[in-house]
Amino acid sequence: MTPQLTEFFHFLRFPSISTDRRHRDDVRDCANFLIQKFTGMGLQTELHETPGNPVVVAKNAPKPDRPTVLIYGHYDVQPVDPVDEWDTPPFEPTLKGDKIFCRGATDNKGQHFSHMLGVEETLEEHGDLPVNVIFLLEGEEEIGSPNLAPFLEQHREALKCDICAVSDTGMIGPGIPTMTYGLRGIACLEFKIHGPSLDLHSGVYGGAVPNPATIAARLVASLHNDSEVIQIPGFYDDVVPLEQWERDMWASLPDGDAATMDETGVAGLLGETGFTALEQRWGRPTAEVNGIGGGYQGEGSKTVIAREAMSKLSFRLVPDQAPEKILEHARQFLTAQCPDSCRIDVELGHFGPAYVMDPHSKYGKAAQRALETAFSGEPRLIREGGSIPIIQSIKDILGVDTLLLGLALPDCQIHAPNESFTVTNFEAGIRLNRALLEELAG
Amino acid sequence: MTPQLTEFFHFLRFPSISTDRRHRDDVRDCANFLIQKFTGMGLQTELHETPGNPVVVAKNAPKPDRPTVLIYGHYDVQPVDPVDEWDTPPFEPTLKGDKIFCRGATDNKGQHFSHMLGVEETLEEHGDLPVNVIFLLEGEEEIGSPNLAPFLEQHREALKCDICAVSDTGMIGPGIPTMTYGLRGIACLEFKIHGPSLDLHSGVYGGAVPNPATIAARLVASLHNDSEVIQIPGFYDDVVPLEQWERDMWASLPDGDAATMDETGVAGLLGETGFTALEQRWGRPTAEVNGIGGGYQGEGSKTVIAREAMSKLSFRLVPDQAPEKILEHARQFLTAQCPDSCRIDVELGHFGPAYVMDPHSKYGKAAQRALETAFSGEPRLIREGGSIPIIQSIKDILGVDTLLLGLALPDCQIHAPNESFTVTNFEAGIRLNRALLEELAG
Repeated sequence: MTPQLTEFFHFLRFPSISTDRRHRDDVRDCANFLIQKFTGMGLQTELHETPGNPVVVAKNAPKPDRPTVLIYGHYDVQPVDPVDEWDTPPFEPTLKGDKIFCRGATDNKGQHFSHMLGVEETLEEHGDLPVNVIFLLEGEEEIGSPNLAPFLEQHREALKCDICAVSDTGMIGPGIPTMTYGLRGIACLEFKIHGPSLDLHSGVYGGAVPNPATIAARLVASLHNDSEVIQIPGFYDDVVPLEQWERDMWASLPDGDAATMDETGVAGLLGETGFTALEQRWGRPTAEVNGIGGGYQGEGSKTVIAREAMSKLSFRLVPDQAPEKILEHARQFLTAQCPDSCRIDVELGHFGPAYVMDPHSKYGKAAQRALETAFSGEPRLIREGGSIPIIQSIKDILGVDTLLLGLALPDCQIHAPNESFTVTNFEAGIRLNRALLEELAG
Repeated sequence: MTPQLTEFFHFLRFPSISTDRRHRDDVRDCANFLIQKFTGMGLQTELHETPGNPVVVAKNAPKPDRPTVLIYGHYDVQPVDPVDEWDTPPFEPTLKGDKIFCRGATDNKGQHFSHMLGVEETLEEHGDLPVNVIFLLEGEEEIGSPNLAPFLEQHREALKCDICAVSDTGMIGPGIPTMTYGLRGIACLEFKIHGPSLDLHSGVYGGAVPNPATIAARLVASLHNDSEVIQIPGFYDDVVPLEQWERDMWASLPDGDAATMDETGVAGLLGETGFTALEQRWGRPTAEVNGIGGGYQGEGSKTVIAREAMSKLSFRLVPDQAPEKILEHARQFLTAQCPDSCRIDVELGHFGPAYVMDPHSKYGKAAQRALETAFSGEPRLIREGGSIPIIQSIKDILGVDTLLLGLALPDCQIHAPNESFTVTNFEAGIRLNRALLEELAG
């Protein structure tokens, strides 16, 4: 065990589960550990109270003639249920071969702690960093970062920076340096179909009255055509087509179709005709049913026509789709199809636009050189299908792009039992930070 | 209060709720009341034990030269929940104007007790009945008559008869004598769509993998075309078209479209093109969704692609559709449409064929004359949309048709709070029994 690993294990042992109020003190102890660590590194360190868990901020002495880099991470972790499925105690870091098993090992303690150690090494060797660095570590990411956007607003001046770097995304495979330059946006809605004023006997009335469950199913079925192309008028109007370099890059990655099938256990893929699975997941918008329900779902049968039925839909968005516009198109599309014999309620939910930065920008190229140095391989440029709202907040409030330099491996089991982080990536993360700050200095 | 009403009220006070084991003794007390009553009438009376509640059988002395009429009824009742919604105590019969409020008043105590009193009057006046009568009163109708078919099998000889009469259906309006000559059959199934091997993040995988909730919705949507015609190949093959006299008869009834809307509270009807609501409900087969479910149905949103989704379907059948054949057609239709990327499980459920008897047969005409005498009006001939499995058992095991001579009014609230029976129908039921036995004697 190196002293760096010993220290990492210490950090991992805090059960800083943000969603469980019984761990409130553990979360705070974990924040205090970071304060101590940053202080020991000689950084100017602040623990900021919020209505929830504290935000830790640490900076070197800023100099005006060099860029400022904000490094974001989160020290809170997911719960450990089902605890029976862990092979080792969830908060006792256990080294087996190259893997460190512990809740938070990858998400996100390992990823941001390696950045911290990179900065520490540079300071020890050179007494200074090549750039101004601001660490921003929050304790509420796993519960949706409710206090981070307000914090950014309040400390807009103190957090002023040129670029943000975050290691909280995935690598496409072990040893393959990966930069994520785009994320999909999201727009949610729920619709309810109201038919009869009470549940009806399907024998007595069936055949003459509208069945809300049938109508809900018809609306869901109408979302796509046989080629899985979304049928909502206007839905694709503002979609920026994938560029040829992106399609070439993604086609050069390990087989995304096979990986998608393997990871999800489906017997086959079912996506928009004319696109690979990676293109469908990263570069194309979707209309997904997250839930549908109506009538009797228990054991056996009940011959009922239920008075209402519902479905929850979410749309994943790509540049330049405007979420509000998509929700309005969807609302109109669904409403127009509801028969006169029923009533439809459409409730619009949360939304956020897609995020994309130019990987060929100055900072984008610098990040790729740093990845190449850290991993001795050519970086792959990908997008991801999910949404990370905090990246959009950083863009909106601080006005800067984020370099998403993930260290999570496909089999690292974040949010699941037996989460792990490899020593290889822990060490690569330290090298990555050192090279990144060099490269960003220009 | 007449002595007949006083006795009826006594009968109503037994809380003979068959579905609730705590009322087991009440059910038995109610059966014993019937034994006492029949014995007092001079009938040969038997209480038969079953694995559940007793069956009461009572007969006059049979004579070989006259027809035997089986009169079926059930002395068990529905539960009374929600008890708060009753305006009077559910088991304290309360007379308000013409209405007697009590659980079981219409369903079915009032209807078969008036037959009993009709027999009693005839016996008192003439010392004999014009036909052989067998009363068969069970105590488990509201829980699906689990022991009745075996009872019929065991007592096939003792229950041998020429015709069955049952008052357990509806009248189309107050004072309008109604004979039900047909019931729809039923065939149930449930299908499950299995997609991914685990619930997926709809951001990470959405767009590339099959979503079982979407597939389930598409299968449901495929059941009908725009004219609400069922699209399962072979579904209509054996349907016997409605005869012109039936369509004319039903068209002459009080407006069924308006009544259907009024009773169900729908803003409009939505049935098979080319048929009235009554034709759709009584004379045409259906494919109804009784339940659909998949994914997240709680508050707010959850961006999930659920690993599976399900739907429960029931088909109402008309003569001569064979339930097993319909279920097999449906299974093939659904299975053929499930994409290769998913797996479908179709579980076939309970079923029974449609029932129809010829209202213009000898006994059918006799029943109509009896209805005319009892109500001083021309009887209407209808079918009903639901299924009464016991009628089919009587047909299958005893080999006889059933005259369905209902006394339930549209507003009598069976199975609901504030069930009622009118004194008018109680008295008409007594007259009906007397006239019926006369007419059946020929």
